[in-house]
Amino acid sequence: METYDVVIVGAGPAGMTAAVYAARANMKTLLLDSLAPGGNIVNTNEIANYLGVGTINGAELAIKMFEQTGEAGAEFDYKTVVDIEDTGRDKIVVCQEDDARYAARAVIIATGTKPRRLGIPGEDAHAGAGISWCAICDGAQYRGRDVVVIGGGNSAVEESLYLASIVRKLTVITMFDLTADPSACDKLRAMPNVSIYPWQDVLEFLGKAKLEGVRFRPNREEGEPRVVTCDGVFEYIGLEPTAGFCKNLGIRDERGCILVDATMATKRPGIFAAGDILAKQLRQVATACGDGALAGHFAAAYVEKLRQ
Amino acid sequence: METYDVVIVGAGPAGMTAAVYAARANMKTLLLDSLAPGGNIVNTNEIANYLGVGTINGAELAIKMFEQTGEAGAEFDYKTVVDIEDTGRDKIVVCQEDDARYAARAVIIATGTKPRRLGIPGEDAHAGAGISWCAICDGAQYRGRDVVVIGGGNSAVEESLYLASIVRKLTVITMFDLTADPSACDKLRAMPNVSIYPWQDVLEFLGKAKLEGVRFRPNREEGEPRVVTCDGVFEYIGLEPTAGFCKNLGIRDERGCILVDATMATKRPGIFAAGDILAKQLRQVATACGDGALAGHFAAAYVEKLRQ
Repeated sequence: METYDVVIVGAGPAGMTAAVYAARANMKTLLLDSLAPGGNIVNTNEIANYLGVGTINGAELAIKMFEQTGEAGAEFDYKTVVDIEDTGRDKIVVCQEDDARYAARAVIIATGTKPRRLGIPGEDAHAGAGISWCAICDGAQYRGRDVVVIGGGNSAVEESLYLASIVRKLTVITMFDLTADPSACDKLRAMPNVSIYPWQDVLEFLGKAKLEGVRFRPNREEGEPRVVTCDGVFEYIGLEPTAGFCKNLGIRDERGCILVDATMATKRPGIFAAGDILAKQLRQVATACGDGALAGHFAAAYVEKLRQ
Repeated sequence: METYDVVIVGAGPAGMTAAVYAARANMKTLLLDSLAPGGNIVNTNEIANYLGVGTINGAELAIKMFEQTGEAGAEFDYKTVVDIEDTGRDKIVVCQEDDARYAARAVIIATGTKPRRLGIPGEDAHAGAGISWCAICDGAQYRGRDVVVIGGGNSAVEESLYLASIVRKLTVITMFDLTADPSACDKLRAMPNVSIYPWQDVLEFLGKAKLEGVRFRPNREEGEPRVVTCDGVFEYIGLEPTAGFCKNLGIRDERGCILVDATMATKRPGIFAAGDILAKQLRQVATACGDGALAGHFAAAYVEKLRQ
């Protein structure tokens, strides 16, 4: 079993920044992710509020960030972490692949979030073929066709702006009113091929072999269900934390987010967390990187102290 | 008196990020600084731990960041803020220049820190001509000559590495041992033209018209004062907060740093703070930007709520 000073689980902006801070502090540092580095930004078309890089495609930013982790001396491997065992001085990071296990003096958990699902009839049947959670990945196949976006927050509205420029007709169905940044909402409302239905519950996805439409109904007043026909649906109804693999550590809140102090330390010595997986109020690239700097710095300081 | 939704005092990474978040939330946003945008990074030779931009010169990063504030729609002006009056719903930002005053629904204070001074004999006499606080600004004039750096933290060691590549002989005098990142300390110790004196008190700067040397003495044991002759001195003994202009607001701790909650709000409604000026444990570009995103977002949400 190979031993590292710091193992970081999750290679989004938080994990990558943590890796740079740990490696530059002379820690033997390993960064793990089951997917390509970047986390959720890989699926983001345009990021304009992370300063220093201009307006940039998310996947492009991910590559630039990842290059810096290598330059700083951090190692990277594709691994799906399924458990973390806290044996006191050492933490054992258990991976799905090849029964791989790593020993670490300190672990930083930065696995972020994944898209939430509605859990209604027809969703499982059409997931991945008709229903998508990534406009950047799957939007292009709906060029000139009719598409529904479900949700009204920042992701829903940003991705709707992108999809509206590609598809014929875009219908946005949301549970509340639009809650995204006012400037983005204004832009979306002004687009000629976009219809917006606020205050709706989505009831069912229609169609057998192929998705054919969405049934929904007003949630604040009486009203008959309505059907919009479409070729594809994109769901943006929020994100859920992905730290089930550390459920035995007792460091999560009731929602599954990880609780930390101002140094990004959990209540378990040597286990830190950073980024969107934290219990926090705003999840942005800039806040994730800030968290990552703290976690990398204080994890390294923790390991340094163990050596003394 | 012109009215803004959000006025940001200080245009370092925290203030600039806050400006982008406020402006993108449709706030009429004004960013003020008495100096060129960038804050302390303008005087930093090399930044390698802010992800997405590679290893970059600080002034270059400052320009890239500043461009994004303009693209987002924030205005900038050169002004020295001398007071903030809290009149309840409006805050009045009072400037030194031309008695300029701005009304703001929300203010974000992001003025950061400035270098601390030793306060010993000879310091005032040679300040700015012999004694400098900025190796990037003044290092080049000591090419091939002998220089002293005072301090042993990250800034002292990073700037020593830079100066050692330029000057003939570099002497580092510090109160404790070197406390910078171990990799940087190792590099500095390995340089052939560098001598390091840890555990010393600096007593006096020598020379009349021109700086001629530094007198110092061991602080942990008995020992005679020693003199090192030199042509220039660079002091890196820490930073002090620069929020004296808001002393009447009662939002600072005993050190002069500003106290905020997790949304970067001070105890005064509508007054937020971000970046190095905060009472915090780690001051980095990444953490400043994270703070700035939070402050810009929650200041905009505060103003939005006032409108309802």
